[in-house]
Amino acid sequence: MKELVEAIRNQGVGIGDDIVKVDMFLNHRLDTELVVKMGEAFAAEFADTKPDLVLTVEASGIAAALTTAMALGNLPVVFAKKSQTRNVTGEVYQSSAFSFTHGVENHIRVSKAYLPQGLRVLIIDDFLANGAAASGLCDIVRQSGGTVCGIGVCVEKCFQPGRHVLESMGYKVVALAQVEGIDQGRLVVKD
Amino acid sequence: MKELVEAIRNQGVGIGDDIVKVDMFLNHRLDTELVVKMGEAFAAEFADTKPDLVLTVEASGIAAALTTAMALGNLPVVFAKKSQTRNVTGEVYQSSAFSFTHGVENHIRVSKAYLPQGLRVLIIDDFLANGAAASGLCDIVRQSGGTVCGIGVCVEKCFQPGRHVLESMGYKVVALAQVEGIDQGRLVVKD
Repeated sequence: MKELVEAIRNQGVGIGDDIVKVDMFLNHRLDTELVVKMGEAFAAEFADTKPDLVLTVEASGIAAALTTAMALGNLPVVFAKKSQTRNVTGEVYQSSAFSFTHGVENHIRVSKAYLPQGLRVLIIDDFLANGAAASGLCDIVRQSGGTVCGIGVCVEKCFQPGRHVLESMGYKVVALAQVEGIDQGRLVVKD
Repeated sequence: MKELVEAIRNQGVGIGDDIVKVDMFLNHRLDTELVVKMGEAFAAEFADTKPDLVLTVEASGIAAALTTAMALGNLPVVFAKKSQTRNVTGEVYQSSAFSFTHGVENHIRVSKAYLPQGLRVLIIDDFLANGAAASGLCDIVRQSGGTVCGIGVCVEKCFQPGRHVLESMGYKVVALAQVEGIDQGRLVVKD
């Protein structure tokens, strides 16, 4: 998506070998117009998969999931909650997602009441790196007896294995921008 | 706001004396159409205060803050990050907000880069209970040399002192729905 590629090139910052900092428009401050356009782009990619619901994980996935849901005709959104404590009850679907950014294993959970059985679910997230968060969300959809329509991510870090992990499980992955690497603090983004 | 009042009456659940559970449309699952209408309602209330930016706190505030920003002509949104660790650097504005729900003191922080000095800032949050989160956000605006245009909350718990706290500091508070109490698991909402 052209506007996102330009925003990453003009505003994004690379730190070290692998940290892609785009919190000036995606993770801390939101460029509202850009977030709306990202939602429209995801909707165009996934409308033909006929999702019933958009699933994401708090907190940074919420904005793009919401604008995607709006562009798909006001679908409901569910955001999985993160917790560092394992606390299983019968009321939630739960999976795990190791955060490389924070070095902890997050458990992510969704109340069963809000993910009815057998739905077609579109997964949206801000970043694809190792695929841990998306894999956890797919696992939750599987537990609910639903179908993953596809996985849309705003920014893919191509030098990490997330896409390979997800595609090898058979999922369709769409990234709106792909960062290929970091060159002396500058983010190298595919055209 | 009529649609929100009806959603609370029809779907919300009261637990014990003081827990207002509306996560079926606001805190875990999002009713997208309702969230869009809440943004329009906040925009109608606050457009004449001419905000430059919408400020909220992750995670549950993000959706209503984003739709408000959209309805105000795609203003930028900044969401404060929560952390339980105090870790002051020169790069962030920081304040504290005690969470009664979780029984911990959260430190909330905003990168100085994303809240330029002297802005007019509209604060949006999902809940107003004791006013801790909103007070913390007001403190951050004050640190940035900005002006709080007003505070918009989706759901006010009238039986807790948040409104009194904020109004006594001189802030304009708008709630889209006001829960007056809990009657045997049923939420009592003002007309």
